[in-house]
Amino acid sequence: MGDSAGLRTGTSGTPRLDGSGGPDLSCTTLDNGLEIVVIPDRRVPVVTHMVWYRNGSADDPLGQSGIAHFLEHLMFKGTELHPAGEFSKVVSALGGQENAFTSYDYTAYFQRVAPEHLGRMMEFEADRMGGLNFDEAVVAPERDVVLEERRMRVETDPPSQLSEAMSASLFVHHPYGIPIIGWMHEIETLNRGHALDYYRRFYAPDNAILVVAGDVAPPETVPRPERTYGRNTPHAGSAGRSRPREPEPRAARLVSVADAKVEQPTLQRLYLVPSSRTATGRENYALEVLAEVLGGGPTSYLYRNLVLDAGAAVNAGAWYMGSAIDETRFAVYAVPAEGRSPQALEADLDRAVSAAASGIDEDMMERAKTRLIAETIYSLDSQSSLARIYGSALAVGETLEEVRRWPDEIRAVTRDDLRQVAERYLVPRRSVTGYLLREPG
Amino acid sequence: MGDSAGLRTGTSGTPRLDGSGGPDLSCTTLDNGLEIVVIPDRRVPVVTHMVWYRNGSADDPLGQSGIAHFLEHLMFKGTELHPAGEFSKVVSALGGQENAFTSYDYTAYFQRVAPEHLGRMMEFEADRMGGLNFDEAVVAPERDVVLEERRMRVETDPPSQLSEAMSASLFVHHPYGIPIIGWMHEIETLNRGHALDYYRRFYAPDNAILVVAGDVAPPETVPRPERTYGRNTPHAGSAGRSRPREPEPRAARLVSVADAKVEQPTLQRLYLVPSSRTATGRENYALEVLAEVLGGGPTSYLYRNLVLDAGAAVNAGAWYMGSAIDETRFAVYAVPAEGRSPQALEADLDRAVSAAASGIDEDMMERAKTRLIAETIYSLDSQSSLARIYGSALAVGETLEEVRRWPDEIRAVTRDDLRQVAERYLVPRRSVTGYLLREPG
Repeated sequence: MGDSAGLRTGTSGTPRLDGSGGPDLSCTTLDNGLEIVVIPDRRVPVVTHMVWYRNGSADDPLGQSGIAHFLEHLMFKGTELHPAGEFSKVVSALGGQENAFTSYDYTAYFQRVAPEHLGRMMEFEADRMGGLNFDEAVVAPERDVVLEERRMRVETDPPSQLSEAMSASLFVHHPYGIPIIGWMHEIETLNRGHALDYYRRFYAPDNAILVVAGDVAPPETVPRPERTYGRNTPHAGSAGRSRPREPEPRAARLVSVADAKVEQPTLQRLYLVPSSRTATGRENYALEVLAEVLGGGPTSYLYRNLVLDAGAAVNAGAWYMGSAIDETRFAVYAVPAEGRSPQALEADLDRAVSAAASGIDEDMMERAKTRLIAETIYSLDSQSSLARIYGSALAVGETLEEVRRWPDEIRAVTRDDLRQVAERYLVPRRSVTGYLLREPG
Repeated sequence: MGDSAGLRTGTSGTPRLDGSGGPDLSCTTLDNGLEIVVIPDRRVPVVTHMVWYRNGSADDPLGQSGIAHFLEHLMFKGTELHPAGEFSKVVSALGGQENAFTSYDYTAYFQRVAPEHLGRMMEFEADRMGGLNFDEAVVAPERDVVLEERRMRVETDPPSQLSEAMSASLFVHHPYGIPIIGWMHEIETLNRGHALDYYRRFYAPDNAILVVAGDVAPPETVPRPERTYGRNTPHAGSAGRSRPREPEPRAARLVSVADAKVEQPTLQRLYLVPSSRTATGRENYALEVLAEVLGGGPTSYLYRNLVLDAGAAVNAGAWYMGSAIDETRFAVYAVPAEGRSPQALEADLDRAVSAAASGIDEDMMERAKTRLIAETIYSLDSQSSLARIYGSALAVGETLEEVRRWPDEIRAVTRDDLRQVAERYLVPRRSVTGYLLREPG
């Protein structure tokens, strides 16, 4: 690998998240396909080292749901060079932190350590990108760990059961309807062969993004990733992501989970809407602003309407999962006040959502935009948020330019944009309503 | 192929559907794997010739929904030997009838002609089992025909939209949730390559069952299928059927379609229940009897309860799709009386279904069994029903012995069996309720 593929040569434009200042990124790609983004942040003597793989639970082969998440577990079980637990022990001994997470569209691994240990993190992470241990002695017990995780988090937890059932009803065909952790009966059948096939298909430098954020300026001071990741063999070139598309929704759906364990009934609603990748025009930005206007905290439309004015709910909000490869979720929710049922609250929520489309004034919209942009800029204060924003954007196929333009796009949203996306997408036939109900013991 | 693989040698036991008399079947298998069942029926000088393929829409590759049905269309578009339409013209010129259908678990083709033309039917059918024409000039226009079929039958038809949405909600993971005709946006992408791959995978003698019913006794008079089908090359040996299993359902679901075109609102309910292939013990027979008790005609429990006694509905019924490879549908439905809404009727239906579990007396059950068995025996009077019963049973993997035992199994069902399946399966968390609503224009 020549210097021409090195870290410095790619130093490109200056993506700035707030449209004016912001981090001075270095971007490059190694010969083996690994994309590298370096985000200088010298305020504290710390670096965040993240590797993002462009595969998540929505890429699980049919009948092997949970394999992406299972593999995330196995990534901590050692390699030929380093026994299980060694990497974690080293991070801990260096006073660092580590974590990993699996999402629908990506899987990521990160460590935060003092800058002088960055090279060592690269060694470990590059090592487990290609040399993972798949002994049966490791695989079977770890599957039991995942099964127990599912038992604890879902099987015995009514809110999680409702959430899974709502997703499965919203996405009748696309794998976003399958839980990230997988269906119990399919996790039970995952074996060494599945894990190995999956690892060989997706864990490779040409399917990964390395994000280094922190006290690494000038970028020349970053340990040369060629010396670690550069040795990994590319092979994911043809991995691809092939997912079925949702059919056009035709029917309003309602999902109910009733359980004696439920302490607080809730009302939830999901709508199938475009994501940053499927939107046309400014739709995704309008949906972001709409979620903030409707349900971004105690000054939001739903909160004022349902909690403060009507006293019908004790909480209410909205969110939009815009960062996704395929069509995605827009959610509104409300927690009924004592003595009110989710059923009774639904009419209030419907009224508020319908009214919002026309009832949002310029002032409400502008305040929401300001909050959204401010929150994101505040979040840049956290080095790991910074790394996450860039890593997740690249992992779902957004460009750094799109990340840079984000504040301007948000500012450009008009009331007409809000009205249009509300009328087009927040409609019954695109929705799944959820009731979490207390079943009389 | 020697005589030892001929039609006569396999003449086996005597499956008798009514447990006492019934058709005297001949069963055999050709060297190339084609299973053959001959059902003598000399009452009229007619034969029914059916070929069943062990592949239906639930075997459509992911993202290619509708391919099984599309291929059924293409099977009428000619072969290297016979141009499009020739087979149909010959059947018609001989005064015969023909048809074909695609289901979740199988695809079947049939002709009814005078016995002396049976050999000719075999020639044509064996020819299109291996020599189908896949010219682009045929494929693309036929796809437009299917798209138009879907537009007419589903896209503009609210009851079909509700039915599709209910199935998609009942089967969150298994392909029974995908419509047999396919999703519009996936039919649009089906091409010659998909059709050819699918044909090569499934259309072969070792994936097929030939059923000949009619004036063919003694079986020696049947034209020797070795001379036609015997020339087809087996290649489906490894085709297999690999389908994901449904997760354990946790949430009651409700699906609503509201449309100004709806003239008659309806209330429907599906439950996820075992099929003949997944049931343990007598569950599937109990479910058959339960459907008959609950909703088999104007003397059934639901009809008497909701229509005759309460006057809440103008019709009510139930059915069970027991013949299926995987977990399947049990349905109850009611059509509200003038001035009643599906919502209002739902409480009545719930009460009736709950009460039925304990409220079925011995007499009601015995009358239902008698009706069920009698109906099936009457249906044997129709030669094509006879051929369908045996063909579909074999196509989903039931044995002729199971078909033979059916009346005895039905007779053996007890009230306790009915109570057990009702309590275990007709529960909210296994259900999808459907409202078809008139939307104020």
